[in-house]
Amino acid sequence: MAVPKEETSHHHGYITDKEKYHQRMARIEGQARGITKMIDEEKYCIDILTQISAITKALQGVATGLLDDHLKHCVLDAAKQDDNAAAAAMIKEATDAINRLVRS
Amino acid sequence: MAVPKEETSHHHGYITDKEKYHQRMARIEGQARGITKMIDEEKYCIDILTQISAITKALQGVATGLLDDHLKHCVLDAAKQDDNAAAAAMIKEATDAINRLVRS
Amino acid sequence: MAVPKEETSHHHGYITDKEKYHQRMARIEGQARGITKMIDEEKYCIDILTQISAITKALQGVATGLLDDHLKHCVLDAAKQDDNAAAAAMIKEATDAINRLVRS
Amino acid sequence: MAVPKEETSHHHGYITDKEKYHQRMARIEGQARGITKMIDEEKYCIDILTQISAITKALQGVATGLLDDHLKHCVLDAAKQDDNAAAAAMIKEATDAINRLVRS
Repeated sequence: MAVPKEETSHHHGYITDKEKYHQRMARIEGQARGITKMIDEEKYCIDILTQISAITKALQGVATGLLDDHLKHCVLDAAKQDDNAAAAAMIKEATDAINRLVRS
Repeated sequence: MAVPKEETSHHHGYITDKEKYHQRMARIEGQARGITKMIDEEKYCIDILTQISAITKALQGVATGLLDDHLKHCVLDAAKQDDNAAAAAMIKEATDAINRLVRS
Repeated sequence: MAVPKEETSHHHGYITDKEKYHQRMARIEGQARGITKMIDEEKYCIDILTQISAITKALQGVATGLLDDHLKHCVLDAAKQDDNAAAAAMIKEATDAINRLVRS
Repeated sequence: MAVPKEETSHHHGYITDKEKYHQRMARIEGQARGITKMIDEEKYCIDILTQISAITKALQGVATGLLDDHLKHCVLDAAKQDDNAAAAAMIKEATDAINRLVRS
């Protein structure tokens, strides 16, 4: 991988609007708690499935938003610095991640 | 919908192992909090996407498990009571829910 | 599996409207040929991806339609004949298939 | 959109191995014909669903492969030519396409 291990523990500065993502994740955490409660109270199965579809959609929205930020910042930066190998490695990482998302 | 509103607030008794689902959801809540933290600390995008794929898979496991329970209990019960209309309506609800899951 | 090998080569009679599914699949075959042609002519990547999303949606529509037919016919029939083991085995098969669909 | 209509009818030259994609699509067309035949012969529902999962996975493999090619060629080219607006517009198009794939 093009990204050294120590770098992954640093701030990357690629997220355009961190507060927005924080709020979306806080809402997703609330949705997860709501589903746990529905299971505890044994709510109607179909209603729980509807909530699981909703939270899955919300998570995918976060994922594709972050991916957009990542491609715009990290990949374009590497390309502009003429670091072809780094840019290609990042794109490979990104498409591998997309593959996992599409299949998850 | 075949299921009257008031019924959805009752216990349905279709979940075979409620404790197992409760634990899986508790783990999912923890994963969601972990992703929020990764965003706050601006961890590497691809690592966050990997976590989102993992939580999505876990949620889908809960969904298809509940669906299995639902089909085994509610639908078969209706079929055995010769309530064809109720059984068909439940199956329609179930396949609509599957459609939403497949597309989410 | 609950379904013996020889049975899978017989007609099952569960498809409510075979002509409709035949036509939908014929359209899907045409869409696949169209995508091959787009690749041969090296059309713009995003336009090809849009077509792949469309054909995937169409295939999932066929899948959930067939599943609905299957649950309505095979599973309910087994339930009505009080063949609990057969009905439960079919539902297990169905939810395994849903799992593969959700993750594909 | 950043890509003018007339350009989409030109060859784009971004596909690294056109022959490979042509062969994968030819196999997908064959799989689609096989599913049509299974429906005509009313094969067991679950076996048809398994084939639909397989063809869906194959299509998504084509999609993410093309996306990888697209990002590597079109987007990096724009970035290197310091055409920030074009590169950002292409990435936006790409993440919109990913969104449709993830949800299809």
